[in-house]
Amino acid sequence: MAMEGYRGFLGLLVSALLVGFLSVIFVLIWVLHFREGLGWNGSGLEFNWHPVLAVTGFVFIQGIAIIVYRLPWTWKCSKLLMKSIHAGLNAVAAILAIISVVAVFEYHNVQKVPHMYSLHSWVGLTALILYIQQLVVGFFVFLLPWAPPSLRAIVMPIHVYSGLLLFGTVIATVLMGVTEKLFFVLKHPSYHSFPPEGVFTNTLGLLILVFGALIFWIVTRPQWKRPREPGSVPLQLNGGNAECRMEGAIAISSAHSMDAADPADAESSSEGAARKRTLGLADSGQRSTM
Amino acid sequence: MAMEGYRGFLGLLVSALLVGFLSVIFVLIWVLHFREGLGWNGSGLEFNWHPVLAVTGFVFIQGIAIIVYRLPWTWKCSKLLMKSIHAGLNAVAAILAIISVVAVFEYHNVQKVPHMYSLHSWVGLTALILYIQQLVVGFFVFLLPWAPPSLRAIVMPIHVYSGLLLFGTVIATVLMGVTEKLFFVLKHPSYHSFPPEGVFTNTLGLLILVFGALIFWIVTRPQWKRPREPGSVPLQLNGGNAECRMEGAIAISSAHSMDAADPADAESSSEGAARKRTLGLADSGQRSTM
Repeated sequence: MAMEGYRGFLGLLVSALLVGFLSVIFVLIWVLHFREGLGWNGSGLEFNWHPVLAVTGFVFIQGIAIIVYRLPWTWKCSKLLMKSIHAGLNAVAAILAIISVVAVFEYHNVQKVPHMYSLHSWVGLTALILYIQQLVVGFFVFLLPWAPPSLRAIVMPIHVYSGLLLFGTVIATVLMGVTEKLFFVLKHPSYHSFPPEGVFTNTLGLLILVFGALIFWIVTRPQWKRPREPGSVPLQLNGGNAECRMEGAIAISSAHSMDAADPADAESSSEGAARKRTLGLADSGQRSTM
Repeated sequence: MAMEGYRGFLGLLVSALLVGFLSVIFVLIWVLHFREGLGWNGSGLEFNWHPVLAVTGFVFIQGIAIIVYRLPWTWKCSKLLMKSIHAGLNAVAAILAIISVVAVFEYHNVQKVPHMYSLHSWVGLTALILYIQQLVVGFFVFLLPWAPPSLRAIVMPIHVYSGLLLFGTVIATVLMGVTEKLFFVLKHPSYHSFPPEGVFTNTLGLLILVFGALIFWIVTRPQWKRPREPGSVPLQLNGGNAECRMEGAIAISSAHSMDAADPADAESSSEGAARKRTLGLADSGQRSTM
């Protein structure tokens, strides 16, 4: 099935994959070149799994899981398969995030450093617990076949909102973690003397932020939503226009109204680009993502 | 005009205002009780304006500016007045953010500390520059009456996306700033010995995060959008259903489709709550926010 604005989607998808992949490469260079390397013996080597697994699983894989329904090549696949891939990617992300937290707890135990004192740890552990809860609720409500549509209809907007909120919170947590680590370890030379490690790891932080911004743009374009399955029956039993609904996804529209009451909106001319966008949106109202 | 789910909106609005107000109180207690206080002499007193103005302007006032169109008591006001209030609040937020950055630059100059070495400063200054750009573009495209509707239609989704992205980025920057400051100043007793200042300021970070989450929920409920003005003419000249569009706002829908191809979606029963939500969404498709 053709996707509106396919080239734009492809460009942004490739950009997101590149920036996400680069973030993983950067975090590996950070711990392997600038820090002590990787290991599992309670030393700094074990701690270093923390940023590597957090960026790889909790940022990169979670980001891909968020946009997996948008890939037009998957629109021929069954909804159940796509739900399984979405859940599977999120489960992998959760497992890597859990291992990353275990690494830092073991490191703290061996080094006699107290746990859970920083804002980074408070926000990060809360996000991980809520992420696992989101995974469990999503599994029982959307993947297993037994939840009634009424329950799904109630949970869906919370699921979509929580997913994006947690993704943003995880990115904020990673940026706090980078800040914390650099202030902790960069003494000679100091962080404020612009040592290569400081500049390099700041750049890692920017890459993660750009990755998050790209995922947020891709997932909020209504015209890139997975089309409704042929033969699907919308859950709307009591009137209303079934074609009008935006289903199961955040969508930022590009349509614009001219309010006659407002002189600032009084123009009536229009250009092809605006028409195309507006029409694309009306069309997208017929699609369903989850 | 009646708002669907008015009590829920009111509860969340009051919660957001309380949590936002509490964040401002907390940051004041932080600098006045735990830190040196406030002043403008290049010392730590001047630095302390940085967190106070960032939280007050760049977080709290920006958050209110984002949801100002949603207040049902303002739906009788003209669109131009509401645009002016939206722009005015964002301008106040930008001015406070600029003063907060001036405070930290002056402090660095007097104390001979280099500028712009931390990830917090890189992300924060980028966010401030983009925020001012967003303000200028919004002023010329949406507030002044001369931009053609076609241009507004192109800029609107970018404006809405950028606004929310910048709000989230600013919150991430504040959390990095709190992390940076606490690791910098909490030496005796150390941050990891859970001193009152550490626990208190971590709590400030959580409050700011909860404030952001509440604003994000309020602004993404389609049923709480400002209704289209009476007599407004939608910019859709070439076919399509004018009632179907979600205009000028991010909306997370609660509608749900049952895909016949997917056994997981095969149930057909429904409950009142789901119907109500679905209908509310169809109704909300007729509304316009900006």
